[in-house]
Amino acid sequence: MSSIDPPLALDVPKGAAEVGHPVVKVRARDVFEADDRLAVEEPLEIRLGGTSFSVTMRTPGHDEELVAGLLFSEGIIQDADGLDVLAHYREPETSPELGNVMNVILKGDVRVARERLRRNLVTSSSCGVCGKVTIDALATACPPIVSDAEVSAGLFGRIASALASAQPTFEKTGGLHAAGLFDLSGQLLVLREDIGRHNAVDKVVGHMLLARRFPLGQHALMVSGRASFEIMQKAWAARIPIVAAVSAPSSLAVQMAQTAGMTLIGFLRPGGFNVYAGAHRVRLGTEDPV
Amino acid sequence: MSSIDPPLALDVPKGAAEVGHPVVKVRARDVFEADDRLAVEEPLEIRLGGTSFSVTMRTPGHDEELVAGLLFSEGIIQDADGLDVLAHYREPETSPELGNVMNVILKGDVRVARERLRRNLVTSSSCGVCGKVTIDALATACPPIVSDAEVSAGLFGRIASALASAQPTFEKTGGLHAAGLFDLSGQLLVLREDIGRHNAVDKVVGHMLLARRFPLGQHALMVSGRASFEIMQKAWAARIPIVAAVSAPSSLAVQMAQTAGMTLIGFLRPGGFNVYAGAHRVRLGTEDPV
Repeated sequence: MSSIDPPLALDVPKGAAEVGHPVVKVRARDVFEADDRLAVEEPLEIRLGGTSFSVTMRTPGHDEELVAGLLFSEGIIQDADGLDVLAHYREPETSPELGNVMNVILKGDVRVARERLRRNLVTSSSCGVCGKVTIDALATACPPIVSDAEVSAGLFGRIASALASAQPTFEKTGGLHAAGLFDLSGQLLVLREDIGRHNAVDKVVGHMLLARRFPLGQHALMVSGRASFEIMQKAWAARIPIVAAVSAPSSLAVQMAQTAGMTLIGFLRPGGFNVYAGAHRVRLGTEDPV
Repeated sequence: MSSIDPPLALDVPKGAAEVGHPVVKVRARDVFEADDRLAVEEPLEIRLGGTSFSVTMRTPGHDEELVAGLLFSEGIIQDADGLDVLAHYREPETSPELGNVMNVILKGDVRVARERLRRNLVTSSSCGVCGKVTIDALATACPPIVSDAEVSAGLFGRIASALASAQPTFEKTGGLHAAGLFDLSGQLLVLREDIGRHNAVDKVVGHMLLARRFPLGQHALMVSGRASFEIMQKAWAARIPIVAAVSAPSSLAVQMAQTAGMTLIGFLRPGGFNVYAGAHRVRLGTEDPV
């Protein structure tokens, strides 16, 4: 029985759509390190005439198209002629974060556009602080999670089975995400489904909060889809040390887990899983294999 | 060769998490009607002390938990005691939409909370007008799509294959959504990938806009995941008559397609697909089967 070393800190090249990251793969009784590819998730700030009006999480690349399409679907522009400027800021080496800022200058009256955007852009269900502050600033407000929680590989196999068998509506519609909270013996405490992954997590955390069952330092959160920034941000705020996702994590989810001291599992299936961060909490060995 | 009748208008019972809907299933050379279950997607408006501050798309059920979890993860409340009131409005029969409104009264200073939420809640990548106006109001601003586009069942099989083989990053990361725009012969015109489904659609629409290749009345939009409200809203704004998704549509996506006069295909795989709305545009028969 031994723990494994945490993967290296993730450094995303500017503008990349994917990035390599060493992960620990657990398959039945086998454990090995492998290089994995992560989809890049980064905040894009959109400025209208120099003033920030929106931040969205996106994969870098084709940022001009993203902003043009967004402004079009919000009714701000009718065609390409509505745009005077649509460009990244020039990027001195000293400010690499400017690669995540797009500047827009409209031909028309910017006040009308600004008011329309303010009315129309609906807040995401708590994407949280993503673009407004960096992960570093978030780390200041929200200290890393210190938890002595430690689990066997076998726990994750049981969690995967429990989630699959307990998700009633997905069976029928194929259209819902699920989030479940488990204790460290693998018992399901609460399961919630929603069309939005983040909503399902909010419902789980809200359930525990209203039932006065905090703190959650000896718990694991499982989500049916991918692990993105906002899932990790919610788990971090609730101080849940372990997050497991059925699908892939994003680059930002991994970076956040590293900063927050959280354990992040991806591609969780009955026969195995990948460890993307915080591998020291996972006991491997023959005692309780996945 | 014959077209098929459009499915009936969708009427979602208040508070339901899923709803039945007759669909046309196309499997190889077989075409049959079947009852399908849809995950319900509805806007939830959150009011702080009587004033609206946020609208989020969600599946009804456990709304109190959703709002409590959201307020917690945004740092507005620290525990259940921070909430004085957390309840739906009473629902006279005359205002069924109040089932989609939650009222919150905080114990603390509401001004501080309001300012914090205003700063922190990041706008979703153009969820658009979802909660602010109803589909009916949207229909007033954006008239139904009139397009004589008509396609054979076989087109969708070719689209499914093209999307799968053309999505480079997904192969490597398993973490990206794709959106592609096709002409009615099945040729792929542009493909974009992003961690956010809606971003991928914005990039596709933005590409066509910047390339001055509008209008899109003889085109089909394909998305790799589910079809939700926001995908349909973007396609409607771009006046694309046909939307096809690899996974399930939500109830609101189907309602929107019906109102907008759009054709909505779900569960598109190489061997078949389901038609959820606008089936009159799909030619079925032996000439070009899926």
